[in-house]
Amino acid sequence: MRIDFQTHPDQYRHWNIVIAGDVATLIMDVDENGGLFEGYELKLNSYDLGVDIELNDAIQRLRFEHPEVKVVVMRSGKDRTFCAGANIRMLAGATHAHKVNFCKFTNETRNSIEDASAHSGQKYICVIKGTAAGGGYELALATDHIILSDDGSSTVSLPELPLLAVLPGTGGLTRVTDKRKVRRDRADVFCTTEEGVRGKRAVDWRLVDETVPNSKLEDLVAERARAFADASPRAGGGKGVELTPLQREFGDGYVKYSTVTLELNREARVASVTITGPQDQPPQTLDDMVDQGAAFWPLRAARELDDAILHLRANEPEIAVLELKTQGAPDAVLAYDALLDANADHWLAGEILLYWKRVLKRIDLTSRTLVAIVEPGSCFAGTLAELVFAADRSYMLIGGLQQDNRPEASLQLNAFNFGRYPMSNDLSRLETRFLGEPQSLETVKGRINQPLNAEDADDLGLVTFAFDDIDWEDEVRIFREERASFSPDGLTGMEANLRFAGPETMETKIFGRLTAWQNWIFQRPNAVGEDGALRRYGSGRKPDFDRTRV
Amino acid sequence: MRIDFQTHPDQYRHWNIVIAGDVATLIMDVDENGGLFEGYELKLNSYDLGVDIELNDAIQRLRFEHPEVKVVVMRSGKDRTFCAGANIRMLAGATHAHKVNFCKFTNETRNSIEDASAHSGQKYICVIKGTAAGGGYELALATDHIILSDDGSSTVSLPELPLLAVLPGTGGLTRVTDKRKVRRDRADVFCTTEEGVRGKRAVDWRLVDETVPNSKLEDLVAERARAFADASPRAGGGKGVELTPLQREFGDGYVKYSTVTLELNREARVASVTITGPQDQPPQTLDDMVDQGAAFWPLRAARELDDAILHLRANEPEIAVLELKTQGAPDAVLAYDALLDANADHWLAGEILLYWKRVLKRIDLTSRTLVAIVEPGSCFAGTLAELVFAADRSYMLIGGLQQDNRPEASLQLNAFNFGRYPMSNDLSRLETRFLGEPQSLETVKGRINQPLNAEDADDLGLVTFAFDDIDWEDEVRIFREERASFSPDGLTGMEANLRFAGPETMETKIFGRLTAWQNWIFQRPNAVGEDGALRRYGSGRKPDFDRTRV
Repeated sequence: MRIDFQTHPDQYRHWNIVIAGDVATLIMDVDENGGLFEGYELKLNSYDLGVDIELNDAIQRLRFEHPEVKVVVMRSGKDRTFCAGANIRMLAGATHAHKVNFCKFTNETRNSIEDASAHSGQKYICVIKGTAAGGGYELALATDHIILSDDGSSTVSLPELPLLAVLPGTGGLTRVTDKRKVRRDRADVFCTTEEGVRGKRAVDWRLVDETVPNSKLEDLVAERARAFADASPRAGGGKGVELTPLQREFGDGYVKYSTVTLELNREARVASVTITGPQDQPPQTLDDMVDQGAAFWPLRAARELDDAILHLRANEPEIAVLELKTQGAPDAVLAYDALLDANADHWLAGEILLYWKRVLKRIDLTSRTLVAIVEPGSCFAGTLAELVFAADRSYMLIGGLQQDNRPEASLQLNAFNFGRYPMSNDLSRLETRFLGEPQSLETVKGRINQPLNAEDADDLGLVTFAFDDIDWEDEVRIFREERASFSPDGLTGMEANLRFAGPETMETKIFGRLTAWQNWIFQRPNAVGEDGALRRYGSGRKPDFDRTRV
Repeated sequence: MRIDFQTHPDQYRHWNIVIAGDVATLIMDVDENGGLFEGYELKLNSYDLGVDIELNDAIQRLRFEHPEVKVVVMRSGKDRTFCAGANIRMLAGATHAHKVNFCKFTNETRNSIEDASAHSGQKYICVIKGTAAGGGYELALATDHIILSDDGSSTVSLPELPLLAVLPGTGGLTRVTDKRKVRRDRADVFCTTEEGVRGKRAVDWRLVDETVPNSKLEDLVAERARAFADASPRAGGGKGVELTPLQREFGDGYVKYSTVTLELNREARVASVTITGPQDQPPQTLDDMVDQGAAFWPLRAARELDDAILHLRANEPEIAVLELKTQGAPDAVLAYDALLDANADHWLAGEILLYWKRVLKRIDLTSRTLVAIVEPGSCFAGTLAELVFAADRSYMLIGGLQQDNRPEASLQLNAFNFGRYPMSNDLSRLETRFLGEPQSLETVKGRINQPLNAEDADDLGLVTFAFDDIDWEDEVRIFREERASFSPDGLTGMEANLRFAGPETMETKIFGRLTAWQNWIFQRPNAVGEDGALRRYGSGRKPDFDRTRV
């Protein structure tokens, strides 16, 4: 079965979007029988990857299709439950790789809520009636403002540890300490209490923002929504852009999109993703850009690349190396960048730039070896040059190959490479790259808007290796083979450490510290063994723990 | 077999200290047959925990016994090897808990080198002749200045991933990216190359500071040592303080020191460590303090507490909860604090304060549930009050217990609680605690030097719970039992996340991100399984990897 990350509100089984003026309501109403896999029922608004794929889709559409929406109210369609978190039977039955991938995607989705709030002026309000447990409360933590019904039974909780012997897997611990800044001893009590916290204590402990009796709940929600909407910098109005279905062709060993091709050599455990640059000049006016909509090259390429990466992660677990390639005219890429740059305060241009930022972060966080292959005919310029700096390594060809009349490989920088697309550590990829040699960053800045050949790029420290045609094939082949021969786990750990030098943010904490500990716990018999807590949950039998503290 | 963290240069089997004026040379010359356990030989200056216990001892003695030493030159006593890193057969045969504990202690030891450099004016120079591989290079990374012999065969390397399918476990990846700020693609090449990097490339890549032919090596080392010594702020001169053997009595279920008692209830999986405050007034003069030497209460208590924590970690793996207790007169503790505070620029007072900082960090990093029990007769004041803020939770008794005429429990703060003892995140424990309510930090500052009873402390947010004698016993008992019933792994992961809110530093990255990934890898069959890389190392058979990328 192929996991598909594309969906559409018409196909949703778990979420409803209701829009009234500048306020959208996002209603979670999970279909028990709508699980992505067999073997579990999605009771009590619990979720699996399929539920989160819809949520991710909804958040994207609210940004692109609804420029008028300034506030999103997230709430439950069930009477007594906000959300019970990730489905436990699903987790208990899933492979380690699926669990980890699932957590990564759900984390990225929650980060995208915070990104919409921070950068798109779409504030999220979470309304909790009933229980918000585990991943349910973590969903609330991703929003700006949590309103808890004060009805004696509505609670927030992170019961993962006492109930399941695992951690809250979607950023909960980090957001409790670093976003909501809950006192650590209270966080300790909270995270070890199955039944959760309600009412005034939840406010006093900073776990929610306010609590109100049911009789006053709707008035308060409306009032807060109004206030957030009034304070929003989102331009509002205007026509949205419909995110039309992606053109995709799944073949044996490839996926073809309109601007992106994913090729899979499963035997060698190598994949390549090739992005084809724009074939024509950008539209002349902003109205033309909006009219092009989802066909506008930068948006189309971002959506297709995003889908290709997600497909690779979820459906091709044994691929070790992902080669990043481009083909096309650098000037055309730069012309589109220039249009976006000049109109970055237009809502659509802004959303497209923010989306590229997120897609590039998704690449940074992809646990496959990333290598940029910079060959004749490629267009690593501006936005697409970021792929070179996202890669663990890059190989650039000096001169041409025999019987190849494509233009010599070049690399071309623009202002986007110096801050438009920050990584999770909040630095640009070039800042991170040159942390030890800030003067090199300055030198490189001086070479903006010049095509750099392989020798220039090598001298400037922009690529790892430059080889001529005599060595090229051998060097790239040896690298591929070597990489495929290493331990996949060792590579995952190494790359997760080497990719994020410098400052840490809540995001890097979530993907580094929290995720790494969770992955460790997901390997431990106390959680996942026959007698472990995940397997025994609901059986009436207590788990049998190895008592050694590690 | 009990692992003992106490040793003395007279007993060293692996290190020599040679002191000439203000320069000490620390020579690593590992005795192949001196392993802590059976089953491996410590060839090529490879190390196990026993080797590191000596190194830790040497670093401590250089600080306390040698106020005149301003530079420490670290080098090898072997001809062709600097150090081959952690012994692989030892790792392959060790339990998961031992591997993790071993890595934690070696990390703390390397951090203590950086602490001596940053705060005690003892700069470390590392001289590499021969190979510095894995943990060998990581040892070099902890120093201030790495000099590599340019002899065609001396190299630095981190071959863990290609050779063993694990990560460099002693901060290597983090120091490569964040301390030495090596470009990430070069770091990628470096960390996947078994044979390592030598000569000029090692300098160009920022892996070492300089390289020099053997003929000029000794002159250069002497020159650098002279320059560092001349620039050192260390006061120098004066009499050192001999770190005399600790008074310890190991009994069934307890370890008794002169000021510290560790009690073990193995059945309940609860231990308590009780620190007895000073019995008399502090010495009148600095000379008297130096004369008291290792018997001076603050130094004695720090050494004993440090040893008790290390003993618990290594030798009592099934203890779930560590209760932190004190007994004595708060005023006496504060009087000693005042002496140290008034003379913080005196080398010995300074070293003692820095040592307390490290001991408190060691407690922060101890993977057991920490709970402070604040009862009548206790002396949680100043330095000892930090234990309350280091704990995951604290319980304080309101009033007294029946038939108990000890003074009512109080908590008393002084300036030390506001910055003298930063955590690994570089914030004080109170700053970290009140990250979400900075006004509470200010309020608490206003209550310095006042004894606070349980109700005051609770109101001020300084303790988690205050109970009177009716509830006290039950509440504490329920907590102990609950905690002992949880999954040890889940608790380790949860506490590692909740304890370090706020900013990240190289230290928190090492103990959070890097360690967590390494622990995960240490659980994966690709590393530790029958067909994994650690087990097959040296067998001539290649490891057999599960190819799934996670």
